[in-house]
Amino acid sequence: MNGLLLNCDIGESFGAWTMGLDAEVMPFIDCANIACGFHASDPSVMRKTVALAVEHGVRIGAHTAYQDLVGFGRRSMDCTPQEVEDLMLYQIGALEAICRSQSTRVSYIKPHGALYQDMMRKPATLRAVMSAVAKYDRQLPLMLMSTRDNRQAQAIGDEFGISLWFEAFADRAYDAAGFLVSRSLPGAVHHDSEIIVNQAITLARGEPLLASDGSALPLQAQTLCVHGDNASSVAAVKRIREAFDTLGQA
Amino acid sequence: MNGLLLNCDIGESFGAWTMGLDAEVMPFIDCANIACGFHASDPSVMRKTVALAVEHGVRIGAHTAYQDLVGFGRRSMDCTPQEVEDLMLYQIGALEAICRSQSTRVSYIKPHGALYQDMMRKPATLRAVMSAVAKYDRQLPLMLMSTRDNRQAQAIGDEFGISLWFEAFADRAYDAAGFLVSRSLPGAVHHDSEIIVNQAITLARGEPLLASDGSALPLQAQTLCVHGDNASSVAAVKRIREAFDTLGQA
Amino acid sequence: MNGLLLNCDIGESFGAWTMGLDAEVMPFIDCANIACGFHASDPSVMRKTVALAVEHGVRIGAHTAYQDLVGFGRRSMDCTPQEVEDLMLYQIGALEAICRSQSTRVSYIKPHGALYQDMMRKPATLRAVMSAVAKYDRQLPLMLMSTRDNRQAQAIGDEFGISLWFEAFADRAYDAAGFLVSRSLPGAVHHDSEIIVNQAITLARGEPLLASDGSALPLQAQTLCVHGDNASSVAAVKRIREAFDTLGQA
Amino acid sequence: MNGLLLNCDIGESFGAWTMGLDAEVMPFIDCANIACGFHASDPSVMRKTVALAVEHGVRIGAHTAYQDLVGFGRRSMDCTPQEVEDLMLYQIGALEAICRSQSTRVSYIKPHGALYQDMMRKPATLRAVMSAVAKYDRQLPLMLMSTRDNRQAQAIGDEFGISLWFEAFADRAYDAAGFLVSRSLPGAVHHDSEIIVNQAITLARGEPLLASDGSALPLQAQTLCVHGDNASSVAAVKRIREAFDTLGQA
Repeated sequence: MNGLLLNCDIGESFGAWTMGLDAEVMPFIDCANIACGFHASDPSVMRKTVALAVEHGVRIGAHTAYQDLVGFGRRSMDCTPQEVEDLMLYQIGALEAICRSQSTRVSYIKPHGALYQDMMRKPATLRAVMSAVAKYDRQLPLMLMSTRDNRQAQAIGDEFGISLWFEAFADRAYDAAGFLVSRSLPGAVHHDSEIIVNQAITLARGEPLLASDGSALPLQAQTLCVHGDNASSVAAVKRIREAFDTLGQA
Repeated sequence: MNGLLLNCDIGESFGAWTMGLDAEVMPFIDCANIACGFHASDPSVMRKTVALAVEHGVRIGAHTAYQDLVGFGRRSMDCTPQEVEDLMLYQIGALEAICRSQSTRVSYIKPHGALYQDMMRKPATLRAVMSAVAKYDRQLPLMLMSTRDNRQAQAIGDEFGISLWFEAFADRAYDAAGFLVSRSLPGAVHHDSEIIVNQAITLARGEPLLASDGSALPLQAQTLCVHGDNASSVAAVKRIREAFDTLGQA
Repeated sequence: MNGLLLNCDIGESFGAWTMGLDAEVMPFIDCANIACGFHASDPSVMRKTVALAVEHGVRIGAHTAYQDLVGFGRRSMDCTPQEVEDLMLYQIGALEAICRSQSTRVSYIKPHGALYQDMMRKPATLRAVMSAVAKYDRQLPLMLMSTRDNRQAQAIGDEFGISLWFEAFADRAYDAAGFLVSRSLPGAVHHDSEIIVNQAITLARGEPLLASDGSALPLQAQTLCVHGDNASSVAAVKRIREAFDTLGQA
Repeated sequence: MNGLLLNCDIGESFGAWTMGLDAEVMPFIDCANIACGFHASDPSVMRKTVALAVEHGVRIGAHTAYQDLVGFGRRSMDCTPQEVEDLMLYQIGALEAICRSQSTRVSYIKPHGALYQDMMRKPATLRAVMSAVAKYDRQLPLMLMSTRDNRQAQAIGDEFGISLWFEAFADRAYDAAGFLVSRSLPGAVHHDSEIIVNQAITLARGEPLLASDGSALPLQAQTLCVHGDNASSVAAVKRIREAFDTLGQA
C-alpha cells in the first residue's frame, strides 16, 4: 500500500492577490481541492490552477463554499438546504468547464470552511451537499471528515448512492469523539514535523491515534488533509509523501 | 418551414429582485438565453429558470456576461481576451451543472450586453468568445448578430470549428451596413406590433429589410431575438409565434 | 401629540432591478431607512433615494446590513463583533457622503434583516452595533425593536451613551414577551387594514396591545415600522398617517 | 524646503489576502492613499490601515476606484459620469466614517488604477471626479498626474473650486508630453535606486527631467508617488525620504 491520498487546498489566490505555495506543494499531493470562486479564486486563477494540477497528474476536486470572498468562506451563513444544493452545483459546474477546456475533469467534491463545518454538524446541510453531488454525478466521491463514528454520514451517503472519502488530519489533535481539538486550546495544532509525520503513518497503517483524553481513537480514512500555505507546511507534506512512499515499498 | 427560432433573455432575476415575465413568455419561444450569475441571476434563480425551460421544452443557452451585477453587464470592461475566455467557460459550466441536475444541458451560447457588443466590434473579443466555446464543446452553436456582411465572423467561426447562429431583430431599425440604428435616434425602436410582426415575417422569409437609408438590406438569420420584459413585449412574441406557425402551415 | 414616527425601508432597488414603491410611500413617512449597498442599493440608487427623502423632508437613516446582496441581508452570517462594527461604520459613512453631497445628513441608524435579528438576540452583536454608532456620532439614535422589557437594551445603550428609538409593528401579532409571532404561525401577520390602523393607534396612545396569549402587552415605542412594498401596504401607511394626523388634532 | 510629499498606495489587502508592506513603508511617507473596498480592502482592513496611518501621523487619502475587486480596479469600465460621481462619494464616505471612529479624517482624494487613467484621458471623467470632491468637501485636494501642460486640469479644478495636488513619479521614464512611457517599452521603469533617488531630487528641486526623446521636461509637482509593494521599493522610499530630509536641512 501507498499510504493515504494526500489532499490539499489549492488555487486560493484571487485576482491580484496570491495565497499558498501551489507550485511547490503540487508535486507531493494526490488530490487538489480547487477553489471555485465563492470563497477564493476566479476564472483565470482556476484555469492556471487546473493546468498546474494536470501538469502534475493530480486529481481535481471542487472545493465548494459559501459565497463570501471577504470572509474566505469561513463564516457560517444561514443558507437553506436548497440554497446549499444550488451553490454546490454552480461551483462544481464552473470548475468542470474549466477542466473540460483542458481535457480533464472534476474527480471529487470537498466543501470548504464553514460549509464543511456546517455539513459535519447539521444533517440537513450534509443532505443538501450530498443531493448536489448525487444530482451532478453519483460517481464523484464526497470528501468529509472522519470521526470516531462515521455511520450516520455513511448511511446518508448510501441513501444518496454516493461514495464517501473520509479524511483525517496529521497536524491536529483529536478529542475522544474523533473531532478536532479546538484551535483555542493548547496542543490543538502539531507544529513538530516528527509528530506530524508519525500521525500520518499511524493513520495510513489504520492504527488508532491517541485522543486528547488519552484514549485510543480508531479513525477510518482514505485521505489525509495537508497544507501548502507556507514553506514549513510544504516541507511537512514532502516528508509525509516520502514516508508513504517508503510504506508502499515495504 | 416554421420561421426563425425565437430566442429571448430569460432568468434575469437576482436574489430578492425579480425581472421579466419569464413564465409568460416561455411558452412562445424556442431558445432561452439564461443568465449565469455574472450580470444577473444566482444559483437558485438559475435552477428555477432551467426548470421552467425544461417544462416548456425550450432549448437552453448560456447567456454569458462581464462580471458586473450592478451594471447588469451593460458596461464594457477592459478585459483581456484570456479573461474573456475564462469567464465564458466559468459561466457555461455553472449553467451546465444546473442543467445536468435536471437531466438537460446547455445547447448554445450567447454573450450578453456589453460582451455581445464588444464581440461584434473587436475581433480579439470574438476570438476569445469562440475559443471558449470551441474548448468547451465544438457542437455548441454561438449566437451572434447578423449584419449585412457576416463573412468575417463566419471565417473566424470556421477557424475555431464552431457553428454560428445569426440573429436578427424584429423591433429595431437597421442601417445600411446591417447594424442597429442607435437607440438615441428617432425610429430606432419599433413599438407598433404590426410593424414588428411584419419585420419578423420578412426576416423569416429571407427577404430583405428596408434599411434606414431606404436601401434594401438582406440579412441572413437563423434566429430572432424577442423580449419578455413586459406585457406588451410578451404580446408581440405571441403574435410573432402565431405568424410563424401560420407560415409553417402554408 | 402626533402619533409615532413612521419609519419605512426605502431605496432597496439595486442596479437594473427595482423594488418597493418608494415615491408612493415617501409622502406619508417620517423616517426613511435607506439601504447602503450591502443588502441592497448601490451608489446611484442611494443618490436618487436621498434626493427623494430630501424632497419630502423625510429623515434619513442608515439601514446597515450584512454583506449579502444575493440573500438580501436576510441570512445570518457568523461575523465577529469587530466585523459588525466595521461594516456598520463603512455603510453609515457611505450613505453620509451621499447625504452630504445633497446638503443633508444621516439622522439615525437601523440595522436590517438578519443583522437586526442578531442584534436583538445576541448582546455581543448589539454591543458591536452600538459601538459603531457611538464611535461615529453619539447624537445619532439607534432604532431597535421594542419588546415587553427593554431594560437590557436600554442599559447597554446608556453604557455607550447613545439614544434608542424603540420601534413597534402595527401589522404583526405579538407574543406575551413582546416578540413578533413567527410568520409560520397563523395570525402572525395582519392583513386587514382596519386591524392594522387600530393597532397603530393603540401603540401611539401608549395603550397595551393584546398579546397572542390574550394577555395585555404594554410596548414602549417612539416609532412604527411600516412598509412600502406594494399598493396595499402603501394604502395602509396612508391610513395610519391620516389616523395619526387626526390624533394630533384631537 | 522638505522636498515633495511622498504618497503611497496603502491598505490594499482584502479579507484573508495580504498585499504590500504597509507597516514597513508607513514610517517614511506623508500621504497614505487608502483603498476603500472597491478595488481592494474591506471595512476591517480599512480600520487597521487607518490606525496605522494615525500611529505614524500620515495624512489619509481616499483611494477611490471602479468596482472591480477581481480586476483590482485596473480595468477601465464604461461608467457614466454620474456613476463615477456616485461611486466616488460612496467610497470617500465609507473611509471617512472609519477615520471618524478613530478621530481623524480624510484629507485628500486620489482615484486609483483605471479610474485614474480615465480621469487623465477623458475630461468627462475628470469632471465627474471633481464634481464628487466639490460636492463632498471643497477643502479636499484632488491628487492627479502632472504632465507637461497641466492648464486644462487646473482650469477644470478652478471651475469646481477645488485644489489640485499634482504628482510625479521617480521610478518611471517620461515622454516629451510628460506622460509615462508605457511599461511595454524598454527603460519605462527605473530599477536602479540611484536613478530613482536622483529623479526624486530633481523633481523636488523643481528642475526639469530628461524626457525619453532627450528633451527637457519641466514638471510641476507637489507630491511624489512611491511604492510599498516589496522590500526593494520600501528601501527606495527610505532613501528618498532621507534625501528629502537632507534637502530640508540645506
